[in-house]
Amino acid sequence: CFFLLCTYAVFVNGFVCKDPKEVTAEDFFLAAKLDMPRDTKMSKVGSIVTLLNVMRIPGLNTLGISLARIDYAPLGENPPHTHPRASEILTVLEGTLYVGFVTSNPDNKLFWKVLNKGDVFVFPQGLIHFQFNPNPYKPAVAIAGLSSQNPGAITIANAVFGSKPPISDDVLAKAFQVEKKTVDWLQAQFWADNHN
Amino acid sequence: CFFLLCTYAVFVNGFVCKDPKEVTAEDFFLAAKLDMPRDTKMSKVGSIVTLLNVMRIPGLNTLGISLARIDYAPLGENPPHTHPRASEILTVLEGTLYVGFVTSNPDNKLFWKVLNKGDVFVFPQGLIHFQFNPNPYKPAVAIAGLSSQNPGAITIANAVFGSKPPISDDVLAKAFQVEKKTVDWLQAQFWADNHN
Amino acid sequence: CFFLLCTYAVFVNGFVCKDPKEVTAEDFFLAAKLDMPRDTKMSKVGSIVTLLNVMRIPGLNTLGISLARIDYAPLGENPPHTHPRASEILTVLEGTLYVGFVTSNPDNKLFWKVLNKGDVFVFPQGLIHFQFNPNPYKPAVAIAGLSSQNPGAITIANAVFGSKPPISDDVLAKAFQVEKKTVDWLQAQFWADNHN
Amino acid sequence: CFFLLCTYAVFVNGFVCKDPKEVTAEDFFLAAKLDMPRDTKMSKVGSIVTLLNVMRIPGLNTLGISLARIDYAPLGENPPHTHPRASEILTVLEGTLYVGFVTSNPDNKLFWKVLNKGDVFVFPQGLIHFQFNPNPYKPAVAIAGLSSQNPGAITIANAVFGSKPPISDDVLAKAFQVEKKTVDWLQAQFWADNHN
Amino acid sequence: CFFLLCTYAVFVNGFVCKDPKEVTAEDFFLAAKLDMPRDTKMSKVGSIVTLLNVMRIPGLNTLGISLARIDYAPLGENPPHTHPRASEILTVLEGTLYVGFVTSNPDNKLFWKVLNKGDVFVFPQGLIHFQFNPNPYKPAVAIAGLSSQNPGAITIANAVFGSKPPISDDVLAKAFQVEKKTVDWLQAQFWADNHN
Amino acid sequence: CFFLLCTYAVFVNGFVCKDPKEVTAEDFFLAAKLDMPRDTKMSKVGSIVTLLNVMRIPGLNTLGISLARIDYAPLGENPPHTHPRASEILTVLEGTLYVGFVTSNPDNKLFWKVLNKGDVFVFPQGLIHFQFNPNPYKPAVAIAGLSSQNPGAITIANAVFGSKPPISDDVLAKAFQVEKKTVDWLQAQFWADNHN
Repeated sequence: CFFLLCTYAVFVNGFVCKDPKEVTAEDFFLAAKLDMPRDTKMSKVGSIVTLLNVMRIPGLNTLGISLARIDYAPLGENPPHTHPRASEILTVLEGTLYVGFVTSNPDNKLFWKVLNKGDVFVFPQGLIHFQFNPNPYKPAVAIAGLSSQNPGAITIANAVFGSKPPISDDVLAKAFQVEKKTVDWLQAQFWADNHN
Repeated sequence: CFFLLCTYAVFVNGFVCKDPKEVTAEDFFLAAKLDMPRDTKMSKVGSIVTLLNVMRIPGLNTLGISLARIDYAPLGENPPHTHPRASEILTVLEGTLYVGFVTSNPDNKLFWKVLNKGDVFVFPQGLIHFQFNPNPYKPAVAIAGLSSQNPGAITIANAVFGSKPPISDDVLAKAFQVEKKTVDWLQAQFWADNHN
Repeated sequence: CFFLLCTYAVFVNGFVCKDPKEVTAEDFFLAAKLDMPRDTKMSKVGSIVTLLNVMRIPGLNTLGISLARIDYAPLGENPPHTHPRASEILTVLEGTLYVGFVTSNPDNKLFWKVLNKGDVFVFPQGLIHFQFNPNPYKPAVAIAGLSSQNPGAITIANAVFGSKPPISDDVLAKAFQVEKKTVDWLQAQFWADNHN
Repeated sequence: CFFLLCTYAVFVNGFVCKDPKEVTAEDFFLAAKLDMPRDTKMSKVGSIVTLLNVMRIPGLNTLGISLARIDYAPLGENPPHTHPRASEILTVLEGTLYVGFVTSNPDNKLFWKVLNKGDVFVFPQGLIHFQFNPNPYKPAVAIAGLSSQNPGAITIANAVFGSKPPISDDVLAKAFQVEKKTVDWLQAQFWADNHN
Repeated sequence: CFFLLCTYAVFVNGFVCKDPKEVTAEDFFLAAKLDMPRDTKMSKVGSIVTLLNVMRIPGLNTLGISLARIDYAPLGENPPHTHPRASEILTVLEGTLYVGFVTSNPDNKLFWKVLNKGDVFVFPQGLIHFQFNPNPYKPAVAIAGLSSQNPGAITIANAVFGSKPPISDDVLAKAFQVEKKTVDWLQAQFWADNHN
Repeated sequence: CFFLLCTYAVFVNGFVCKDPKEVTAEDFFLAAKLDMPRDTKMSKVGSIVTLLNVMRIPGLNTLGISLARIDYAPLGENPPHTHPRASEILTVLEGTLYVGFVTSNPDNKLFWKVLNKGDVFVFPQGLIHFQFNPNPYKPAVAIAGLSSQNPGAITIANAVFGSKPPISDDVLAKAFQVEKKTVDWLQAQFWADNHN
């Protein structure tokens, strides 16, 4: 359900969100087990994003911040995606990550780095970005801050080829310079996102 | 070159942009020929976006608005793309357009419509959207307002498969559930965006 | 009635606006007939503004954008007005327009241009501006983007001389350097705005 | 000259404004003599606005606030005007004021009050508002807070009839339902604003 | 109770706040008696802040402004405090004030001034600031504008030593470099804030 | 030195920050060694904050996000402080933390929790908050996201008792209900903040 608090400012643009007397520390807390590895086996792309946004922690409402842990299987990745409402800053807790983002038209420059434990990288709002664990034997873990209580996430392949209903294959064939049957095959695949 | 004005507010966050005495009506004007059809023949996707942003009209600076005309060849399209910093409202001047946008994870719902002359549709900030002219004989034309003086545009296929340097094919093969050689073939294509 | 959606962000500052499952493409669409000339005969000032804001298209909510078509009779005008919450970018679809805006105190500079088909002009937020069709024989048409889902419009003459109840004629006589009987006469006129 | 500081945030959107080591308390201070009556004799409308904005107090930059004292002669007024970038809250220090603002189209409602010493009234951003001292013998004084470091002020009569160059009398005659010679006469008057 | 209006924009982020037809001038008005001295005798710190925010004047909602009168007893003070959501601009109506604010880490510079009648000073958002009346015989009075309809006020001593429940004395003893029994003594005192 | 980039938006409010062609991935990267324990021995309060803001990573400019690692000695604390420009979300990587924040006047409620590894807590913008490691034998470590590229930090005790120059002891004695000699003693102590 979508009931939320706006405990901090008491009034958010003039609406009462919850009687301030009923707000407690629990509204700002989550026993999120962010220290625990997630099981990445069920993920086709080999990663799980644990995003703590306003739906998980009501007290985040209006505060413009959220936090995520990402687990990467060996050779797993957080595939190309965007956050329509947030920038991101990420640090590697375990392992190694090949990361990057692509600038907008007309340059489409890829800015990339290989990050080791303790390194930090920034992904500007709305730009397509990814992280990939190049190590075939070891998992990787990252923690990221995002500049919205509800950043949103658009996994590019899923939105393009896995939308419900599907986008016309005429559109996608021309956009991706492939044949329509290729688009049809792609649209027939199972597209699950790696957030939960 | 990137010299700009901030004539309206005189000071933009405290910086002098241009001596207010030197600002003229020309800074807020462009003989943009938005009434003239653009030649879509050179565009692989069959469309040309004429975007009037702050780089074209310096007086737009800080005003949070820009305007675009889009020309579509018969069967042409404005392929799936996002604006990282703007929402868009579009109306059809000529022809017919199949348009849509896809919501973020986990639903990836496609909201779509076939628009006729005079119809209006809205594309929320940061979401992947497209327009396609389904008519094989007649061109189409649209006008759109965007909620930023510098909306940015990310053509999805170009950013994903046409970045410079390319994104690792390991990343893309897994993300799009295709073989690496398919990715390599795609990355070898020519990816030009349809803005100018 | 004033029921609205906030479908895009799901939560707008933490409030549920509508169950996301009930949102459809219709919320982002309007068969607005923006291609059709409006009848300007009933307008004293010879113009009709067709504004598509959040009251007309619920999905615009929170998106910071709206769109308008303006029809001008021969010698018709969109009289001096302001938008308290939006900047505007306008292009001429048909005919010719003499347009301008006036800067704030102390300079009160008029920045003006005569626009032909395809030309573009910008009106900064909150400044008094107008468009006038100088052609005595032909109508004119413009399309404009505005940087708010609810820009508001204040027609200067109507707000000053047509308010309900009227502003004291003492105030207006001194402000406009005219006699009170002139103010009284003006306040007795019929002041209809040109929006609908 | 328009040199300014942005001392508070050190970086304003990433620009260095002034070496923080050179900033002093003087940047946040003004011996403004706001306690002293201003001479309203030179003002045609019988009022003087003393506005302390970022041009007067550099440290206000980026802080979103300014302060004004307004002196009213007997029967003097602060004539109908707008602030394109600020709301206002006003309290009466001395005397009595008839105040009001007019809502936007289509209602153009006048919300008004007679304020006595110690009363408070609010003027929403961008709306036309005024204050008038109805007492023929005694001056009045008010203090107001405004929600911008650079609110701007548009005196309606001055912007409409006193712009440089003048707005075409065709436009104004039709807008104000008067004859062109009346407009011409008005435009020939001297229009000085009451700010300094 | 916390019922509020959002009369100005009609829709605040898409919510109806109150039927616009039911809004009146009273929603923007308060007979606040800001001209009347407050009795500072009951205040331990010798001052009373009369803050007119959105809880007192519903029409302030969304307008980003509020107003305060502060009365200072001889040797009274408005003790060190912050406004988490507003900057402040203050002018002295009566008497003399020693005022200042402290910059953030690592410099912790005190910017201070002695203000006389009519002088103006600025306190940037979120910084610790104070005003003190150094005159042992005469009261002082100030008026301040604040850049939020709900600025909030955190009296430092009260929040640190008077919170309910108290902060652990381990934390405060180490933070303030004093013994725990000193903290305990402080926490046993009565901490009343000077707003009402 | 304070040279910065604004590479993302190309123009930040219309200013060119750096030739986009000269921006590289290095501008968005830092080999921050956030995985490495910091030596808390030199800190009087037993903690070190490693804050990665726009001064450390130029590409953060305009992105509204930063990241911090905090190391706590056994019984160490991050003493009561505020961020004037950011909310914070924190997770515990190692150890246990007693954390809390205090609401504004008039309630001054302490919202607190004891956090274990993997737990998450939120500190709203501008409110006084702290973290304390109650374990006398083991260090603790936390990672936090903050909703500004330049959050600022005000260590309460340092700003109040360690400002340069000092705040008058008259002011502080009355504010904290202690004798002036106690204030004088406190002001004579060494106040170092725990950021670097």
